Amino acid sequence: MNSEETLKPYVIGLDLGGTNSVFGIVDSRGEIKATTAIKTQGYDNVDDYVAAAVDALHVIIDQVGGIDKIKAMGIGAPNGNYYKGTIEFAPNLSWGHSGIVPLADMFSKKLGIPVALTNDANAAAIGEMTYGVARGMKNFIVITLGTGVGSGIVVNGQLLYGSDGFAGELGHVIMCRENGRSCGCGRSGCLEAYCSATGVARTAREMLNTTQEPSLLRELKPEDITSLDVSIAAGKGDKLAKDIYEFTGEMLGEACANFAAFSAPEAFIFFGGLTKAGDLLMEPIKRSYNEHVLKIYKGKAMFLISGLEGSSAAVLGASAVGWEI
Amino acid sequence: MNSEETLKPYVIGLDLGGTNSVFGIVDSRGEIKATTAIKTQGYDNVDDYVAAAVDALHVIIDQVGGIDKIKAMGIGAPNGNYYKGTIEFAPNLSWGHSGIVPLADMFSKKLGIPVALTNDANAAAIGEMTYGVARGMKNFIVITLGTGVGSGIVVNGQLLYGSDGFAGELGHVIMCRENGRSCGCGRSGCLEAYCSATGVARTAREMLNTTQEPSLLRELKPEDITSLDVSIAAGKGDKLAKDIYEFTGEMLGEACANFAAFSAPEAFIFFGGLTKAGDLLMEPIKRSYNEHVLKIYKGKAMFLISGLEGSSAAVLGASAVGWEI
Repeated sequence: MNSEETLKPYVIGLDLGGTNSVFGIVDSRGEIKATTAIKTQGYDNVDDYVAAAVDALHVIIDQVGGIDKIKAMGIGAPNGNYYKGTIEFAPNLSWGHSGIVPLADMFSKKLGIPVALTNDANAAAIGEMTYGVARGMKNFIVITLGTGVGSGIVVNGQLLYGSDGFAGELGHVIMCRENGRSCGCGRSGCLEAYCSATGVARTAREMLNTTQEPSLLRELKPEDITSLDVSIAAGKGDKLAKDIYEFTGEMLGEACANFAAFSAPEAFIFFGGLTKAGDLLMEPIKRSYNEHVLKIYKGKAMFLISGLEGSSAAVLGASAVGWEI
Repeated sequence: MNSEETLKPYVIGLDLGGTNSVFGIVDSRGEIKATTAIKTQGYDNVDDYVAAAVDALHVIIDQVGGIDKIKAMGIGAPNGNYYKGTIEFAPNLSWGHSGIVPLADMFSKKLGIPVALTNDANAAAIGEMTYGVARGMKNFIVITLGTGVGSGIVVNGQLLYGSDGFAGELGHVIMCRENGRSCGCGRSGCLEAYCSATGVARTAREMLNTTQEPSLLRELKPEDITSLDVSIAAGKGDKLAKDIYEFTGEMLGEACANFAAFSAPEAFIFFGGLTKAGDLLMEPIKRSYNEHVLKIYKGKAMFLISGLEGSSAAVLGASAVGWEI
């Protein structure tokens, strides 16, 4: 720990989701010292949102000894632009869907500390590098499997932001050029349409329709089935539920084989709700990757599950962006 | 030009191809001062090849004032590993197909100057950054359209080598997961199987079979058709030949749309024989890209043809690797 870290031993992390905004004050080892949350929606404009956030933050800032103990703040947010510190046209944010919100600057002015912002998957990647399973790695890809599929790509020890700050949208690589599933991005065949939580639920509905396989999932209304139901059924040994993970993992493994041809990472790290399936998902990913990857890459990459802890993983990721400033 | 460049104003570039090895002595502005060549094949082992190369090199080194004028040597070679300076299991090299050849070290010992080696597409990318259309760019992708399809990816101003030195094999990204054309890599559906010179010839044979369109290409034996024949026919206004470029460009544009989701480059730069088709190829690439790319990237990337001059482009690229040492 250098002297600045001794004087300012903490960073604030903000995991800005479509529903909740979760704040944590985190030390350099990734220990969360204090935490709070507000609703993300329900504010007429972004000024009101930031005011409510800062009110909530002041309580936990006081708990750790005041703002002088805080080095910086990191934000992980949908459609976050690292270069500009903005959230741009985020479809799921009532105060952010129709324009460019300079959120990093707004927090920085209110708190008097530097603030950096990036998208949630990039924050996860920086989190893995700072506190997680990617410590010491220079080339890896984090794939977030949540409502959508996101990615954070690290090459030469640096996050890949590209020319415009928006690099690393691997959830929107086209996997099926023909007859692909429609995707929320307006196109079809994207990886996200198959391998997100909603993609898994779609796979479940498809398989229930196209096979005669008995399954616990048949007891549910098809339109109500979620990836959690699939996970519970698989946990009970349900064959169809396992087949759904097979299909999902097969697709992810093929996608990773293509990503290897891009950046030849030493590891693929999976983050988010779907990873709770563990080997049910990871084994088909690895098998499919080794089957599909170009010979020169075979057997080189590791397949890991996030080393950031459960519910606080996204906050830790966001806070790690603060250390990078 | 700094003082070292005044004292040692030249680098040697070696474009090591399957048939010929072309050497050039190049100054910092990309002017080739002297050039020579030997056959790549026909040597029993790599020692004989290096000995013949050095003999040929000494003649042109003397022409520019001796080895003291030379800062370094750069080599662009198939299956070149930048990290190790080796050529690894290169299928087309009689003295390099069955093992790992430490070619950079071998030349360095014989010549007494530093030698760096990378694969030919990476050399092209460094060449574009040093002397070509990518001067000043920090994020771009070079796609080489020759016998195969290769790529050199630059992010944050650095060539992307990945964890093992073999990153950037975009010719082997799978475009067609089902019923794809077989590829030289042993898999099927790779971009290279469609968009290399040999891929274009395959497309020609397919289209001659599956359509009734009259074409100058019908005057040739199908098995003899090359991409050059397609180019000549297209130059004469042949509709089928133009359709072949449409198909090729469409596929390349879709591939680039996926690559954008990876590194969000400011430009895609096309290099190699097929680019002689000019707008016949470039227009469908751009159209297809804009049709398929994720909204946030739309209209951002430029599509350029290599700025390195014709027959010496590969030598210039290789020489640029020497400046990077």
